[in-house]
Amino acid sequence: MGPMSRVTSDLTISLDGFLAGPNQSRTDPLGEGAELLHRWMFEDGEANAPERDGILDAGAYIVGRNMFAGPGAWDKDWRGWWGEEPPYHAPVFVLTHQQRAPLVMQGGTTFNFVTDGVESALEQARAAAGERSVAIAGGAQTVQQFLAAGLIDELRLHIAPIILGAGERLLDGVPNLTLEPIDVRGTRFVTHVRYKVTP
Amino acid sequence: MGPMSRVTSDLTISLDGFLAGPNQSRTDPLGEGAELLHRWMFEDGEANAPERDGILDAGAYIVGRNMFAGPGAWDKDWRGWWGEEPPYHAPVFVLTHQQRAPLVMQGGTTFNFVTDGVESALEQARAAAGERSVAIAGGAQTVQQFLAAGLIDELRLHIAPIILGAGERLLDGVPNLTLEPIDVRGTRFVTHVRYKVTP
Repeated sequence: MGPMSRVTSDLTISLDGFLAGPNQSRTDPLGEGAELLHRWMFEDGEANAPERDGILDAGAYIVGRNMFAGPGAWDKDWRGWWGEEPPYHAPVFVLTHQQRAPLVMQGGTTFNFVTDGVESALEQARAAAGERSVAIAGGAQTVQQFLAAGLIDELRLHIAPIILGAGERLLDGVPNLTLEPIDVRGTRFVTHVRYKVTP
Repeated sequence: MGPMSRVTSDLTISLDGFLAGPNQSRTDPLGEGAELLHRWMFEDGEANAPERDGILDAGAYIVGRNMFAGPGAWDKDWRGWWGEEPPYHAPVFVLTHQQRAPLVMQGGTTFNFVTDGVESALEQARAAAGERSVAIAGGAQTVQQFLAAGLIDELRLHIAPIILGAGERLLDGVPNLTLEPIDVRGTRFVTHVRYKVTP
């Protein structure tokens, strides 16, 4: 058995710390104003290729139920936001209370529904990832749970130069952690900072 | 007459956006936990010399009354937190409602008390700074006033890798601005980002 895979989390936040704007809904999952957070990826992708590749490099992903379906119970036919070929191309473990059989999508993505908590999700994701990393892909509450439990090794913040003023904050309710900035790089629409996290 | 001096503001904030911890008082002006914000300057000064020099490079400073004296009315003999030779070595304009004659300190610092608002303070500071820049040195409310009024040309954030969880946030109540990151650099205890601000 090889070394345990590294656990990473990539999050784009506003300069005032929000990862989603106000009034998130199933028709506006990012909340008001928050599409500007992701300009760096969609309008300036080439300049940010290393960081974009880093996000897509994981061997397995873990997401919260809101990230998969938004707030509220989901319809049994709901297949996520991303169409038939989601960008993960790897197993995705969805934290939820709704039991459901795995959902096999095109291009290598399978959504697996985990109803027994974050530790179990991580164990399953590690098994699926092999030697590659496991990425905690959001939303805020899920990342907060993993950070508070000391389960994230590397936090990669992508700080967009916008002020949202309201919405969901990434770091609310997270206890102080030992964070060490290990790499920083800037482009036009974003500042990338990688932090090594020690509980 | 030369070009108008540039207006800058250097602020050290936590990763969750606080520039001061909770329970600020005259005996603990930074608030609880916030001394860690400034490690980069005091424990790793050499590695951060360019940014430290940048802070001290202004030809005049503007500060809020809390920055000069903490909350509450000050005693008529109060001479600031910094001893007889404050680190400014330049004129400092204190925004206040308490009229007072200028206070001449050692080493080139003079505290001037401005009772007629931010525009007047800026005009006086520009006149004093000549071709050098004017620095808005804090605290949060003062910076927020200048940002909201579109009077800051360059915001220089020094982002410390700590999570304070509570205290005074730098960017609360600031409307969205056009911010362009123009320089980024990291050292062990801090990530420096300079933003060009366009109202």
